[in-house]
Amino acid sequence: MNDRFLRACRRQPVDATPVWFMRQAGRYMKEYRELRQRYSMLELCRTPELATEVTLQPVRRLPLDAAIIFSDLLLPLEPLGLPFDFVKGDGPRVERPIRAESDVDALSPFEPRERLAPVLEAIRLVKASLSGLVPLIGFVGAPFTLASYAIEGGHSNHYAHTKALMYGNPKTWHRLCALLADTAADYLVAQVEAGADAVQLFDSWVGALGPADYREFVLPHSRHIFDRLKSVGVPTIHFGTGTATLLPLLAEAGGDVIGADWRIPLDDAWALIGEDHAIQGNLDPTLLLAPTSRLLAGADDVLQRAGSRPGHIFNLGHGILPGTSVEAVETLANHVHAFSSI
Amino acid sequence: MNDRFLRACRRQPVDATPVWFMRQAGRYMKEYRELRQRYSMLELCRTPELATEVTLQPVRRLPLDAAIIFSDLLLPLEPLGLPFDFVKGDGPRVERPIRAESDVDALSPFEPRERLAPVLEAIRLVKASLSGLVPLIGFVGAPFTLASYAIEGGHSNHYAHTKALMYGNPKTWHRLCALLADTAADYLVAQVEAGADAVQLFDSWVGALGPADYREFVLPHSRHIFDRLKSVGVPTIHFGTGTATLLPLLAEAGGDVIGADWRIPLDDAWALIGEDHAIQGNLDPTLLLAPTSRLLAGADDVLQRAGSRPGHIFNLGHGILPGTSVEAVETLANHVHAFSSI
Repeated sequence: MNDRFLRACRRQPVDATPVWFMRQAGRYMKEYRELRQRYSMLELCRTPELATEVTLQPVRRLPLDAAIIFSDLLLPLEPLGLPFDFVKGDGPRVERPIRAESDVDALSPFEPRERLAPVLEAIRLVKASLSGLVPLIGFVGAPFTLASYAIEGGHSNHYAHTKALMYGNPKTWHRLCALLADTAADYLVAQVEAGADAVQLFDSWVGALGPADYREFVLPHSRHIFDRLKSVGVPTIHFGTGTATLLPLLAEAGGDVIGADWRIPLDDAWALIGEDHAIQGNLDPTLLLAPTSRLLAGADDVLQRAGSRPGHIFNLGHGILPGTSVEAVETLANHVHAFSSI
Repeated sequence: MNDRFLRACRRQPVDATPVWFMRQAGRYMKEYRELRQRYSMLELCRTPELATEVTLQPVRRLPLDAAIIFSDLLLPLEPLGLPFDFVKGDGPRVERPIRAESDVDALSPFEPRERLAPVLEAIRLVKASLSGLVPLIGFVGAPFTLASYAIEGGHSNHYAHTKALMYGNPKTWHRLCALLADTAADYLVAQVEAGADAVQLFDSWVGALGPADYREFVLPHSRHIFDRLKSVGVPTIHFGTGTATLLPLLAEAGGDVIGADWRIPLDDAWALIGEDHAIQGNLDPTLLLAPTSRLLAGADDVLQRAGSRPGHIFNLGHGILPGTSVEAVETLANHVHAFSSI
C-alpha cells in the first residue's frame, strides 16, 4: 500500500508529501455530476455501490495518497430523530430544528451498524476495490458543527440560535453535545471496524466561537471522541476552519493530525498546535481557480512553511469548490509530490 | 459634548469606557421596525429626514457615547455604475455583478457631494439634532468588502468569483480597488465636511483572506484611504471580522482605532495591533441573546482584558442581531459605564 499518508499522520519520514483533498469526490468531476443527474445526494450516500463508485472516482483519475469515503456530515442526524434533506441552492434543511430542551429529550441514541449500515457497507466495498492502493479515510461531523445544523436547521451566518441555546441553557447544550459525541465515536469505531484506515472529525464551523467558549462548550465533547478512539489504533485528524485562535485547543481536544485553513500561515499554525502533532493543510481552495503559476506558488509556500519536519499532509484549507477544473487538481497533486521529493 | 468616544480614539484618559454598537440603529428596535413597514431600506437611506430619525432612535433610547449615521455599506455602488437592491431574506443583490475587465471599464468615479448628497444632508441634520450630545460617526465600505459585493453580486460563502478575479487578473483587481479606494476616501472626506466627528472603514469580510493575500491585494488600497484622511483631522476606525491573523496588517494599513471581533481575546488583539493604536470591540453579538449574567460576564472579560490603558472603545465584534432585545443592549451599555468607572 502507498502508506505516505499514514506515515505522515504518525510523523514518520515519507518519500514525498502525501496529498488528498477535502471534497475530492464532488461536483468538480464530470463523472460525479453525471451520477448526480440520476441520483440525489442522499441516494448516493445511502446506496453502497453508488457511494463506492463516487469514492473511487477521484482516486482513479488523480494521483492521491488517500481516499475518503463519500458520505455527508449530517447522516447521523436522521437516526437520532432529526430528518433532513438537501434543498437545491440552499443546502441542508432539517425538518424540525432543535430549539428547546424537549427537542433534545426526543432524540435517541442508535446503533450505527444498523442505521448507518450503507456507509459501513460502502467502506467495505471501497476497501475491497482499492485492494491496498491507498488508505481510506472515514469521517464524521463534530458535536459543535452537527449541533449547529441541528439547531439552525441549515447553514447559518451568525449561529444565533445555536449560541442562544448554548448560553441560555448550557445543561441542554451539553446533553445534546454529549449525545452527538457518543454518536460520533460509535460511528467512527464502526467505520474503523469496517475498514477505515484513518478518521477525520469535521468541526467545520467551530471558528464561529472564541477560545473561552470553545473550551467551555466544545472541547470536552470533542475530547471524548478522541479519547474513545485511542484504543482503536488508527490515526485521527481534527479539522476546522477559521480556527487561528483555537488551534491549541483543537490539539488539546485530540487528534494525531490537526487541520488548519489558509487564514493562518502553516508554520504559525504548526507552532500553535505543537511538534507533537502532525498538520494537514492549508491551501486556499480558491487558488484552484487561479492561473497555474499562482496556484503552484501558493502550494510552494505551504510546502516551504511545512519544511522538512515529518508530519505534513498536504490538503486545502476547506473543500474543493464546484467550479474547479480536474486538471488544476491534478497539476497541484503532481506538483506537491514532485516538489516535496526533491 | 460627551467626548469619551473621541478621547478614547486618541488614547486619552476617560471617566468611563465609551460604548456604541455596530448596527445600533436597526431591526432590534421597535421604532425602526415600524418605519421599515412603510419604507424600504434604500428609501430610509436616501431620505435625509428618515435616515436622521433612524440614526437618532438608539441615541434617544440608550446611553450611547456615539451615534453612527444610518446608511448602507453599498450606497457608493450605484453611482459607480452598479445598481443593486435588497431582496427579502437574501440580502443585497447587484444587478450586473463584475466578472471581467470590461465590467470595470464601465465604472466611473463620481462626486459624492452630488450623488450621495442625501447621506451628507442626513449627517448635517443629525448633527443639528444632536447639538453636541454625542459625536457622530460616518462610515464607508472598504475596497475588499465592496469589491466582494460588486463581484459576487451579494453575500458569499467562499468569495470564489472575487478571488478568481483577484488571482486571475490582478491588474483589473487593483484597478477596481483603486477606484473603490478613491471613492471611499472622497466620500469619507465629504462626510467629515458635512459634520462627521469620526469615520469607520468597514472591511467586514476581509477575514476570508490569509495575510499574504491581504498584503498584496488589499493593504495598498485601504492604506490609500487612511493616508488621504490624515489631513482631515478626525479619528479613524478600521474594522473587520475574522481578522485574528490580519490585525497587524490592518494596523499597518491605517486607522487610529482597530476593530477586533470576539474570535480573539481583546488583550491578544491589542498586543497584535500595538500600543500606538486604540482598539474597538469585541463582545460576541450573540451574547446579547444570552441570560444577563452571562452577557455581563462576557462584558467584564472584555473590560478586564482592556485593562486601564487608555484607548478602548467598547463595542460588539459585529453588528447587533435582529432578535436582540433593546433591554439587553441598555443593560450592557449601562454595565460598561458602571464597571469601567469604578
